[in-house]
Amino acid sequence: MTPENFQYVVEATQGSARAGTFQTPHGAIHTPVFMPVGTQATVKAVTSEQLSDIGASIILSNTYHLYLRPGADLIQELGGLHKFMHWERAILTDSGGFQVFSLNGLRKIDEDGVTFRSHLDGATHRFTPETSIAIQEQLGADIIMAFDECADPSDFEYNTRAMQRTHRWAERCLAAKTRPDQALFGIVQGGVFPELRERSAAFISSLGFPGHAIGGLSVGESKEQMLAAIEVVNAVLPADKPRYLMGVGTPYDLIEGIRRGVDMFDCVLPTRLARHSAAQTLSGRMNLMNAQYARDEHPIDEACTCYACRYYSRAYLRHLIRAREMLGATLISIHNIHTLFNLAATLREAILQGNFEQTAAALLENIPPSERNKL
Amino acid sequence: MTPENFQYVVEATQGSARAGTFQTPHGAIHTPVFMPVGTQATVKAVTSEQLSDIGASIILSNTYHLYLRPGADLIQELGGLHKFMHWERAILTDSGGFQVFSLNGLRKIDEDGVTFRSHLDGATHRFTPETSIAIQEQLGADIIMAFDECADPSDFEYNTRAMQRTHRWAERCLAAKTRPDQALFGIVQGGVFPELRERSAAFISSLGFPGHAIGGLSVGESKEQMLAAIEVVNAVLPADKPRYLMGVGTPYDLIEGIRRGVDMFDCVLPTRLARHSAAQTLSGRMNLMNAQYARDEHPIDEACTCYACRYYSRAYLRHLIRAREMLGATLISIHNIHTLFNLAATLREAILQGNFEQTAAALLENIPPSERNKL
Repeated sequence: MTPENFQYVVEATQGSARAGTFQTPHGAIHTPVFMPVGTQATVKAVTSEQLSDIGASIILSNTYHLYLRPGADLIQELGGLHKFMHWERAILTDSGGFQVFSLNGLRKIDEDGVTFRSHLDGATHRFTPETSIAIQEQLGADIIMAFDECADPSDFEYNTRAMQRTHRWAERCLAAKTRPDQALFGIVQGGVFPELRERSAAFISSLGFPGHAIGGLSVGESKEQMLAAIEVVNAVLPADKPRYLMGVGTPYDLIEGIRRGVDMFDCVLPTRLARHSAAQTLSGRMNLMNAQYARDEHPIDEACTCYACRYYSRAYLRHLIRAREMLGATLISIHNIHTLFNLAATLREAILQGNFEQTAAALLENIPPSERNKL
Repeated sequence: MTPENFQYVVEATQGSARAGTFQTPHGAIHTPVFMPVGTQATVKAVTSEQLSDIGASIILSNTYHLYLRPGADLIQELGGLHKFMHWERAILTDSGGFQVFSLNGLRKIDEDGVTFRSHLDGATHRFTPETSIAIQEQLGADIIMAFDECADPSDFEYNTRAMQRTHRWAERCLAAKTRPDQALFGIVQGGVFPELRERSAAFISSLGFPGHAIGGLSVGESKEQMLAAIEVVNAVLPADKPRYLMGVGTPYDLIEGIRRGVDMFDCVLPTRLARHSAAQTLSGRMNLMNAQYARDEHPIDEACTCYACRYYSRAYLRHLIRAREMLGATLISIHNIHTLFNLAATLREAILQGNFEQTAAALLENIPPSERNKL
């Protein structure tokens, strides 16, 4: 019997940490999982085959960017995002909300939606909960996200208003949704305020979404505030639905997030750092431009099994970076994505084997304190 | 019985066109063959696996660039160029001569060698026939090239002097060579002057090189002059050694070169054009930035079997280019290299099947006259 789409099965738990499987029309997602980001319908510098080789089961793409260029109607006409970018596994699109709210000075919010100016050509556009869902239906991802209002995390009054509006918009998104082959996830807001986070988690949970996201974190608050917010929210969110912590994904954050019951993560860091010559490892970041690697015949990480670490030395990667060769960004991106993806997979295995806390403790011990507060 | 290294066997001929196999310590090269260029120890934007998938049996790398950065001693220390760049098939390095002679105003030639300034930092360096061979031995390619003097192709006096010096330097290169696992190819010079080309081919042939190259072409002369020079030279060069036409590689040039008995070609065009959004096809170039491709669901070339054409539309490639995504250069580079490599393979097959002239005529008919004179 084939499992039903968007069914989430928890296979094992260890404290709050869970291992599960979420079914989508483009394959099963084994959680906890790290999702690489392909903002403009491509994970930067990496092919779909290279992503498949890493094991990636789902990638994220950004509605704001695709709506502006090449346009959601064009992608729909060409068969949807999977076919357009040649990615046969699952895709998640965000709602465009976070990007639009990040356009400081270029956007105006009202109860119905947001009017904003394109960062590309300054043209005026408008997103509402209904248009965000319509665009995401044109793009055709497996998981789509509710349109929410992202507030400065430390302003209580603004967070209260933004949370209430996010709740009204969540109901409008549910009402606007038409495609049965897409799962719409609700988003919990509330900044760093436990009482708001609790209220938001309770309300969003009550709407019957097949999955829930924690939004508005990793945007300037402290790590303690972030982890506290995750704990409050996950204590309320139903255990039988996947939980997605949006925009978060350093090794430290993954471990601490999974320990608190998060199932899905995404982050642009692996590819962004790679384009700036930084390799991520489980014991910290390594700037491959450094002269100390000039004649270093070792791979980035001896223990890593990624394509870059199997075949290429630090000296070669440094040469590529210095010579401004694109292959440098490709190889380091592959390594960084592999590192994050594999870390989530390792922790999943530990949960299934019943030794999550020991595994997490050993991994955390390896992360220098200076790395823990990095975004 | 394993074939001896650097043995060249002609398997079939059709007029002057030949199909053969050249043995190297890193595999057999079936000729005619197109060699992609990896100037800085990487074929730009393409991985070794992607090159292997295309079928590439040999790539070219540039001694001048590698000598300056990261340094030939560093590459030697790290196990040689094959290991450094993770390419297990054959490599050919040029002598550095062409690059050094292209440094207008930054180089000074004397009988012993060339003093030049680095394009990277202006530092002064010196190449002689002996240092060029020593550097190429450090790099460790399978085929290395004699250090030659490249002259303006239309100056008879200068070409006479440069040719004579090239001959003296060829003898010095042979004397300097020590590694038995490398084949040193001699280079014929003489500009556009048939009498010089003939003299140079006769002299270089007399030195007993395991392979010969035709240098100093595709540098400003007309196509007719280029093809005439090839004919003169190949009438003199021995038939039992491979012939390499340096730096030449449009589809038209490949067909006309093979028809005149050339076995090996290299050219930066496939990857350079790709980075400027131009796809090469057997019926001309296609600028994928053009608005006409915005909603075009077809691949670059319906008949092409490369990775890019199997999975990606013109509309997607145009999107990648407009969005300045690196994947665009990767996919178009794969297509362009595949096109040139596959064209040579098709003509090889035609020679083996005995229908070279019909195949070449059909291919030439498909190339618009406006494309024939392009470099």
